[in-house]
Amino acid sequence: MSEGSRKTKGVHKGPRSQRVIESVFEATLAELAELGFAKLTIEGVAKAAGVSRTTIYRRWPSKSELVAAAMEPLLAPYAREIDSGSLVEDLLALMEILSENLGRPKARELIRVLNDPSLREVARSSADRAFAAFLRVFEHAQARGEIGPEEDVEMICHLTVYGLTYWAEHHGRFPGEAERLRLLRVVLAPLPGIELPQLA
Amino acid sequence: MSEGSRKTKGVHKGPRSQRVIESVFEATLAELAELGFAKLTIEGVAKAAGVSRTTIYRRWPSKSELVAAAMEPLLAPYAREIDSGSLVEDLLALMEILSENLGRPKARELIRVLNDPSLREVARSSADRAFAAFLRVFEHAQARGEIGPEEDVEMICHLTVYGLTYWAEHHGRFPGEAERLRLLRVVLAPLPGIELPQLA
Repeated sequence: MSEGSRKTKGVHKGPRSQRVIESVFEATLAELAELGFAKLTIEGVAKAAGVSRTTIYRRWPSKSELVAAAMEPLLAPYAREIDSGSLVEDLLALMEILSENLGRPKARELIRVLNDPSLREVARSSADRAFAAFLRVFEHAQARGEIGPEEDVEMICHLTVYGLTYWAEHHGRFPGEAERLRLLRVVLAPLPGIELPQLA
Repeated sequence: MSEGSRKTKGVHKGPRSQRVIESVFEATLAELAELGFAKLTIEGVAKAAGVSRTTIYRRWPSKSELVAAAMEPLLAPYAREIDSGSLVEDLLALMEILSENLGRPKARELIRVLNDPSLREVARSSADRAFAAFLRVFEHAQARGEIGPEEDVEMICHLTVYGLTYWAEHHGRFPGEAERLRLLRVVLAPLPGIELPQLA
């Protein structure tokens, strides 16, 4: 089978195909941030990514599937096994993943348009996966006795995730290392014996 | 001058006029939450409020002015003098004002559509006024020596306001008294000597 005929029959798996997928995802997130979900079109994404519409439809038959797929690379890092033996180290690692996502160009617009009712499931599942990663490092800390079983880890996680995500709403820029440490200094204050590193 | 002729000449000041204003504001916020700013029309608001378009245009010549005016009753309570002599009491009073706003029907939709770029100024000024009210009670507490001058009140305020506002994003409902106390238990933990009431 020639390269040319295979192209129309199925989904490529090679490095070229990987680059195509990446540019489609980038274009999807950029178009989504720019236009919102209602005005997003597969045609527009195809144009922005420099691929044919068929290339996109073949893999993601609907806009929702395309958006969910494009979000995946942002969410995958939360599934990483993070368990350094130190709650603070684990939290700093997770906050760095979240801050990297927040620091993307158009991240604020993306947060805004993810609130579109048509994307409720995608938004909910994204938030749940980030939140679950934070909960997990607290559970590890409880399991090894670093913090007590009675601590309000749900509230601490909530304040950490949403405090970080919406820092830019009020302060105009996403949180850097200094803000992350300031945030931890507050939310970890209820936990006896947890020490924070000094800001370099 | 008869009631009828006065109606077309200027802006009423009586109790009937007050009721008209209130129903226009309610209709504006409801339409805004439902449709977003782009699809909001003065005609639609007039219809929903049961008034003529002229009644609205006469007072608020643009959609932005109408929306800003309709937000005002939600924001006015933050300007109230709140200074009971106790940081915790002051914070609970402010959190109640914020929770009342958040507990309005369609509040989540309203938070979402306020992120529309066309409403950036309205959204920013709303957030600033709520935030300033929280900052003020911390400054009172510092002035009377209840908390030290070195505490990170900006971060504590940020976590309180955004933690409360976005509680429903993850938990599906706006925070009740129990969640407000849980939130304060975390964010006030860095402050030595601050005691929280037990949940009734």
